[in-house]
Amino acid sequence: MGTLILGIDPGTIITGYGVIEVTSSYRAIDFGCIKPPSKTKLESRYLILFESLESLIEKYQPDAISTETQYVKKNVQSAIKLGMARGMVLLAAAKNKVPFFEYAPSVAKKAVVGNGSASKSQVQKMTKALLSLKTIPEPEDAADALALAIAHAHTLKMRKSCTNI
Amino acid sequence: MGTLILGIDPGTIITGYGVIEVTSSYRAIDFGCIKPPSKTKLESRYLILFESLESLIEKYQPDAISTETQYVKKNVQSAIKLGMARGMVLLAAAKNKVPFFEYAPSVAKKAVVGNGSASKSQVQKMTKALLSLKTIPEPEDAADALALAIAHAHTLKMRKSCTNI
Repeated sequence: MGTLILGIDPGTIITGYGVIEVTSSYRAIDFGCIKPPSKTKLESRYLILFESLESLIEKYQPDAISTETQYVKKNVQSAIKLGMARGMVLLAAAKNKVPFFEYAPSVAKKAVVGNGSASKSQVQKMTKALLSLKTIPEPEDAADALALAIAHAHTLKMRKSCTNI
Repeated sequence: MGTLILGIDPGTIITGYGVIEVTSSYRAIDFGCIKPPSKTKLESRYLILFESLESLIEKYQPDAISTETQYVKKNVQSAIKLGMARGMVLLAAAKNKVPFFEYAPSVAKKAVVGNGSASKSQVQKMTKALLSLKTIPEPEDAADALALAIAHAHTLKMRKSCTNI
């Protein structure tokens, strides 16, 4: 069995996740999203997110979690909410002792498309190709999470090749 | 025994807390701060914060948690980190099924000083007076947390007096 990487694209409304196995190639094990019902109270939304992340960690026992370095948004209130979602990812990683890595969105895009300013749709198409999926991963957030997992896999491979020099 | 309120003033570096008992008057049960060692890794800082909050909840079994509505900060990166700290409070409340309330900083200041734009030092002096403490509560974050608990206590008393009409 190869290295399992759990990619997470945290959001206030929807959080994408993607699990890949890295051997000599990449294989998608699971992907999807966590979306608490829209009318759920704020504190319950974060509890659902946190518990869903813990369930994914328990189910797949990933070797690493790869998430997004959150970029600057103009709206500070959104930034606080986004920070809250990000906090759930960090806490789930720390509480379950899973090594935690983060990549800028541009790095994740570059890892899958070769272009740091690729569109969401390009990321979906290229994750489909790289992981030999039958259809494009939906929703976009799941594709973004898979891209984050792939970005970390690339880093691991680069480290390995450096070690072998 | 009266109503126990746990006030929390979350921050990225330091989180203040204060526990008060509300009967016909207010009494401070405990106050202080949670300050993870400065060189701790980011994800471990939030784990320390979350676990410390859970310990406080377990120890005091508060009837309510009162925290701060986070105000708009100009620096978006700070807002994300502050959101992460706030996320720990919401999660600790939801996970332990403690009702969660939030008050704007100006409301908490008004509750203790009578002035929504009171200084940190005025908040410290007035929480000392209202709770009959021997010295001013330190650090400021602990005084702010006690003020948040008092703000919620005021709301409870107002509700009660409305019910009795």
